Amino acid sequence: MATTVITNISSLVTNDLSLGEGPLGTVQDAAVVIDGDRVVWVGTSSKAPATDNRVDAEGRAGLPGFVDSHSHLVFAGDRTAEFNARMSGRSYSAGGIRTTVAATRAATDEALDANVRRYVREALRQGTTVLETKSGYGLTVEDEARALRIAAAHTDEVTYLGAHIVSPDYADDPAAYVDLVTGPMLDACAPHARWVDVFCEQGAFDGDQARTILKAGAARGLTPRVHANQLSYGPGVQLAVELGAASADHCTHLTDADVDALASGTTVATLLPGAEFSTRAQWPDARRLLDAGVTVALSTDCNPGSSFTSSMPFCIALAVRDMGMTPDEAVRSATAGGAAALRRTDVGRIAPGARADLTLLDAPSHVHLAYRPGVPLVSAVWRAGVREA
Amino acid sequence: MATTVITNISSLVTNDLSLGEGPLGTVQDAAVVIDGDRVVWVGTSSKAPATDNRVDAEGRAGLPGFVDSHSHLVFAGDRTAEFNARMSGRSYSAGGIRTTVAATRAATDEALDANVRRYVREALRQGTTVLETKSGYGLTVEDEARALRIAAAHTDEVTYLGAHIVSPDYADDPAAYVDLVTGPMLDACAPHARWVDVFCEQGAFDGDQARTILKAGAARGLTPRVHANQLSYGPGVQLAVELGAASADHCTHLTDADVDALASGTTVATLLPGAEFSTRAQWPDARRLLDAGVTVALSTDCNPGSSFTSSMPFCIALAVRDMGMTPDEAVRSATAGGAAALRRTDVGRIAPGARADLTLLDAPSHVHLAYRPGVPLVSAVWRAGVREA
Ligand SMILES: [Zn+2]
Ligand SMILES: [Zn+2]
Repeated sequence: MATTVITNISSLVTNDLSLGEGPLGTVQDAAVVIDGDRVVWVGTSSKAPATDNRVDAEGRAGLPGFVDSHSHLVFAGDRTAEFNARMSGRSYSAGGIRTTVAATRAATDEALDANVRRYVREALRQGTTVLETKSGYGLTVEDEARALRIAAAHTDEVTYLGAHIVSPDYADDPAAYVDLVTGPMLDACAPHARWVDVFCEQGAFDGDQARTILKAGAARGLTPRVHANQLSYGPGVQLAVELGAASADHCTHLTDADVDALASGTTVATLLPGAEFSTRAQWPDARRLLDAGVTVALSTDCNPGSSFTSSMPFCIALAVRDMGMTPDEAVRSATAGGAAALRRTDVGRIAPGARADLTLLDAPSHVHLAYRPGVPLVSAVWRAGVREA
Repeated sequence: MATTVITNISSLVTNDLSLGEGPLGTVQDAAVVIDGDRVVWVGTSSKAPATDNRVDAEGRAGLPGFVDSHSHLVFAGDRTAEFNARMSGRSYSAGGIRTTVAATRAATDEALDANVRRYVREALRQGTTVLETKSGYGLTVEDEARALRIAAAHTDEVTYLGAHIVSPDYADDPAAYVDLVTGPMLDACAPHARWVDVFCEQGAFDGDQARTILKAGAARGLTPRVHANQLSYGPGVQLAVELGAASADHCTHLTDADVDALASGTTVATLLPGAEFSTRAQWPDARRLLDAGVTVALSTDCNPGSSFTSSMPFCIALAVRDMGMTPDEAVRSATAGGAAALRRTDVGRIAPGARADLTLLDAPSHVHLAYRPGVPLVSAVWRAGVREA
């Protein structure tokens, strides 16, 4: 396997405090050596060892590929008219997640696969090298299993979310839907997923239902993660911690007890500012979580209903502007934080032994991701040692 | 000159109500024929005339190139540390516009030219085909004239902003600086500019000083535009209307009398949400202006201090989320609105006779500019008939 050195990186975020300075382990005038899919050397450019190939970063900043630990990409259709009506202050009679469920069920495998491929590619061009995605727009045994098979063709981080909402087919008997989700649907889905998730919220699944679903998934080897406390206060966050979930996602409405629970456990708080942006909702308070010692991840929640962005740089800019994060904290949360939310140690950092996931920016530092909002700064992306963009 | 047809545009915003439907004159399944630097035909794809060349838009949406009527690109250095400190809640002793003035004065012509070229190019890749830019970081006769000469090499829309702040060299005698700006500096600058601008704000120039400066510029053939009512209530907006300025820019703090003045005059209100985003300031109320019948433009204010974005799509997304604009209104303001703020009738629309400035999006409609915030959707750009991106 050929080795490659990337030299003249003006400022490299490693997220490894033994390699560099400051809270992000930053190395100035850095070089990274890649061998196959791994990083094998990180240091000062002038001291880089000889390699087969050489890429000159020409003073660009470098950082680990973004780890987007929360997206919903297996869907068909979009909801432009609903978005347009909401933002224009007009009512919109149809719409909502059921629109997407109907379109997804009606779509061919090929159409769904092409959609996932497209958005994974779009995210990759914006620097995202690890991306979790979910089922949740099928809500039948066949459609959920199909969604997971399709997702698994594009990422290892696949989440079973049969419990996204109670299927409209079971509107009169939610308990029977929970039985389905924990029974035949789980049987069909577990082989294709790593994670089990539930939308624990008023109007979706309550704490007891969520516990039942997450425990059933765990018994089949799926690790829990929870959509928790997005729209209102509720039991989701504390349930996530109780069950040792990898992540509690959204965390917009938190009591002091919720924050204490997160601080005392190992569950990451994953914040999804794209959802608050696109629904004009209250921002999650990242500062409060960070000050309590909670590990925070930033992700896109990319989905056609409430957050149709695939841009991790956009989420970083929002987190800095509106959620009380410093640029350093936001960049760490979008890289190492996402890796923690997926319990991955091979990504989210740039160090010998880590997977060679590296993004270069048309800017002299990672701070520019917040300083230059909306500007497509990502100029090169390596994923597992392969130059992808 | 060869003719080119661009076919299969799923939805084309023309901003010409005689050509299409709805508030933006939208044509479904559209084609555009370009001859040289002009549009010569717009209509349904199936009826497009034969041409020398053919480009298939493959169902992408089209719209006029963005008209960014307010930027500050002739500068050197950046202010990353200052931004980082502000966003991290740390004080920062140096900083401010004087940092940029010092760096700009110290820069070579070549460095300044390369900087302007870079940002114009960056904006073009994001769909901006007309871009106004200003002096204002020189504040000496030589440095202001140099800034305008450099700007004029990249755009026709050049603004003399010697009155950005009182030069630090004249801190003890602002009246003498006004004499300079309206005397020798104006003599040196007028030949290189189309517009004269003043930052009318507490701590910069008051209403009387602003009137003096704008009238002096007008007497030399420069049309006024005004930085008005950004940080506080003040005389700027009404002065702009009184003097027949093309635009009053910022308009964040407006009294009813200010809104009435704008509604009764021909001055465009140019809103710059990137500045409010990056300084965590109050949003301008676009809804109030639109409801009063004021013509609104959206622009980036791209500058290294308060708004280091070159992204018109980002400004559109903010305007929809936080300023009460519908997606249609935001897109119109970023195209036809900007053209009005620059008193241009050849751009900001797609119609026979207009300059061939056209942007295609990786999306089925212009609404996606707000619906998919942060995502680089611009997939192709023609400027004056030339494919630039
Ligand atoms: Zn979600
Ligand atoms: Zn300005």
